[in-house]
Amino acid sequence: MPEIRLNPITGDWVIIATERARRPEEFVKKEEKKTLPAYSPECPFCPGNEEKTPGETFRIHDGTSWQVRVVPNKFAALSRDGEPDHKAVGLRKSLNGVGVHEVIVETPQHHMTTALLPPDQVRRILQASLDRYRTIYQDPRVQQVILFKNHGEGAGTSLEHPHSQIVGTPVISSEIRLRFDRALRYMDEMGECLFCRVLTDELEEETRIVAQNSGYVAFVPYAALSPFHLWIFPRRHRSFFGGLEDLELEPLAELLRLTLAKLYYGLNNPDYNYVVRSVPAVDPKREYFHWYMSIVPRLSKAAGFELGSGMFINTALPEQSARLLRETQIPAQESGF
Amino acid sequence: MPEIRLNPITGDWVIIATERARRPEEFVKKEEKKTLPAYSPECPFCPGNEEKTPGETFRIHDGTSWQVRVVPNKFAALSRDGEPDHKAVGLRKSLNGVGVHEVIVETPQHHMTTALLPPDQVRRILQASLDRYRTIYQDPRVQQVILFKNHGEGAGTSLEHPHSQIVGTPVISSEIRLRFDRALRYMDEMGECLFCRVLTDELEEETRIVAQNSGYVAFVPYAALSPFHLWIFPRRHRSFFGGLEDLELEPLAELLRLTLAKLYYGLNNPDYNYVVRSVPAVDPKREYFHWYMSIVPRLSKAAGFELGSGMFINTALPEQSARLLRETQIPAQESGF
Repeated sequence: MPEIRLNPITGDWVIIATERARRPEEFVKKEEKKTLPAYSPECPFCPGNEEKTPGETFRIHDGTSWQVRVVPNKFAALSRDGEPDHKAVGLRKSLNGVGVHEVIVETPQHHMTTALLPPDQVRRILQASLDRYRTIYQDPRVQQVILFKNHGEGAGTSLEHPHSQIVGTPVISSEIRLRFDRALRYMDEMGECLFCRVLTDELEEETRIVAQNSGYVAFVPYAALSPFHLWIFPRRHRSFFGGLEDLELEPLAELLRLTLAKLYYGLNNPDYNYVVRSVPAVDPKREYFHWYMSIVPRLSKAAGFELGSGMFINTALPEQSARLLRETQIPAQESGF
Repeated sequence: MPEIRLNPITGDWVIIATERARRPEEFVKKEEKKTLPAYSPECPFCPGNEEKTPGETFRIHDGTSWQVRVVPNKFAALSRDGEPDHKAVGLRKSLNGVGVHEVIVETPQHHMTTALLPPDQVRRILQASLDRYRTIYQDPRVQQVILFKNHGEGAGTSLEHPHSQIVGTPVISSEIRLRFDRALRYMDEMGECLFCRVLTDELEEETRIVAQNSGYVAFVPYAALSPFHLWIFPRRHRSFFGGLEDLELEPLAELLRLTLAKLYYGLNNPDYNYVVRSVPAVDPKREYFHWYMSIVPRLSKAAGFELGSGMFINTALPEQSARLLRETQIPAQESGF
């Protein structure tokens, strides 16, 4: 019998299609891992090709060379110049597409992947991201900053060189507003943070936990929307990602890298997206929210049913997905944990 | 300068990324059309293989052979037997995955595609769909019926034989509820149907119209979420798709086929999904809603940005997408219009 589960945070219904569920092992990618060169002469993100990108907005370097660079996206979805200038003609409402769209070049090494980088390098990536995250929010046109990564072609990127992206938009979507509303209503009714409650429950139940350390917990959500969908929650209640302190970056880097390494070794380097969810800077006191990361491996395809119903079908049992990742060992020479 | 447009019906913000917009011609599929056999011995939907599917729930035949069959999905996402049986353990809410999941086999001919079928056959497909749509709503466990089609691998199907699907779920998603709320609020405030207003405006502006006939209008929405995203609206205000009269099926079949043929010839048989949006049967008097079809060619990929922001990026100008399809001619021997 299939089971339909409600995601208490998003309000999404997910059909856990147990009848046609595949065993977790069946999600392991069949192709061999591609071997990439450490340097590619054509790649705009490789050292020596810096003039192929617009001018840097941020850099971390060790004296002789850069370790992380942030540059404007050459094919930005939003324009850096101009004002939003809202217009309305009848029901046709629009504004100028102004905002910020930058690329975080995560390492000088073309052939690397976040899962295999040294923990210190993942910390530097987060440090650069956090700096730009805060700075972009200072742009008065920016209502919302999205930090995300597309890994692999199936996740929407064609560039191999490890990178993530950060976008500041001049509007907030109704989907994001609804998440805030839902969290606010829960706090109004229950007098506690919805996310803290979910985390406490998950730690007690244990079956969906993948990994944890002093600051963070990685788990498969109860109503995971797709196989191996993962959340990383900070233990400490805080609504705004931009409010993170430097000391909190190290355990986040450690757990993010471990979680991505478990996907890399457990599922043979799947394509994935991740995003950071947070309240916007304009109101860091929205204590009903709790920032977190969501990682979505691209192992299934939303089709007509999802489009029409607003529901998801997950062909893997969340508890089984969590177990496979929990039991995935990271080879010692790679681990650095 | 990119433009950000609001979809007045869904409330979605869409970035029309004009700077990196591709010319409409660039969306034409490069591959040659695959030539399929008229009959495939392995195909569960081909004539002679009827025992490979569960027993028929509906059939249209011309005396000697069937023209359209409806059968339960062999790999159904929901179970036909049992009761919903809602459960709640703390924040973990669930119910049994009971409901209906059927496949509409659209023609006996394996190599056909809806765009090329005779108009009469498209009418029969709609007639079978409508019959099942109404019948499935009579199941007291069913809250919502979704009629949809996945065409091509990129749209989530691996079966070549032309088919669509119909699913009856025991819950309604919050995403769908929100569409109703939005339409209701508009009627409360403006005293008219939101959809009728959008249709009137589109007909007046003309630039996004693709095709029309006595009963229906096909157009690219003002804030199309992706290139060549299409809506088919009935001119007659009616909230419930199941309330369609037999006489209204012929012009719908004609316009649906013409629209799909324009995609087929204009973009070289792209993968696409379509869905029917309607109020549920339980309340056909919800006059603030207006049923319609949404067709989404799979020409772009939602990635981390869409996941994180709840916004879409469309790299084609809706007016240009509409124009290309409007000007696409259907070869005379195929048209039958």
